[in-house]
Amino acid sequence: MFNIVLLEPEKPANAGNIGRTCLLTNSKLHLIRPFYFKMDDKTLRRTGLDYWKDVDLEIYDNYEDFLEKNNHPNIYYATTKAKQSYSEVKFKDGDFIMFGKESAGIPEEILNSNKNNCIRIPMIKDLKRSLNLSNSVSIILFEALKQNNFLDLI
Amino acid sequence: MFNIVLLEPEKPANAGNIGRTCLLTNSKLHLIRPFYFKMDDKTLRRTGLDYWKDVDLEIYDNYEDFLEKNNHPNIYYATTKAKQSYSEVKFKDGDFIMFGKESAGIPEEILNSNKNNCIRIPMIKDLKRSLNLSNSVSIILFEALKQNNFLDLI
Repeated sequence: MFNIVLLEPEKPANAGNIGRTCLLTNSKLHLIRPFYFKMDDKTLRRTGLDYWKDVDLEIYDNYEDFLEKNNHPNIYYATTKAKQSYSEVKFKDGDFIMFGKESAGIPEEILNSNKNNCIRIPMIKDLKRSLNLSNSVSIILFEALKQNNFLDLI
Repeated sequence: MFNIVLLEPEKPANAGNIGRTCLLTNSKLHLIRPFYFKMDDKTLRRTGLDYWKDVDLEIYDNYEDFLEKNNHPNIYYATTKAKQSYSEVKFKDGDFIMFGKESAGIPEEILNSNKNNCIRIPMIKDLKRSLNLSNSVSIILFEALKQNNFLDLI
């Protein structure tokens, strides 16, 4: 089972889509406060469809709370600022993959403390934009799943 | 360059996100009518952000029009009904990957005529739901890119 971590997500449509992806892949979703939406937000329910309640979900007050409750696990940090591509990593069952908020990504201080575990998705750089958050989650999560024979999904 | 084909897309937010993904990966986006939204729809522009106009985009009246104008290219058909996983395919630069409308997927008659080129994304089946369309596009497109050393994106 893989673990997807969203640090301070801003858009309920993204959280909803990511919840759906987690549910369909037996992945666990970890959300770190503050959110910029209500957990019962209409959009979140609509995007996450009728099974948001079935998502394996855990919520934390902050990053430290998340680290402690998960016993400082192996975490990969997705960022456009990494040198290493997600495709170079050997993912193991149980790994955590963290994504920052849509507008700003993961804070520099967290990235700087975990340089060897920072990963990026190759894309054109000169647009000063990046992929949609739920798309980024899907791309990295499915690479991790593929490397592990899709666990028990096939 | 890879080619993403959306057959009768219904949700402008998905088309916008997919346009963004195409732009960021030097992929071409092919849209086959009828759409269920206007190309200048506010949501499409918002989701596709300010560079929708820069997406390498072609629009067709119908499936036959698309086939003819592209000289019957090599097309993979993404469907939950395929036996073959997308990860088993060897994608080549220039391939086309087609996705059906959100509510119904690609019509059975098209799938039945192209069985060897149908591919699916492994996911839990008993939920009777599938991944969000733009997430599905991202997963398969990035597998194709990865197999081809990300073309010139790295």
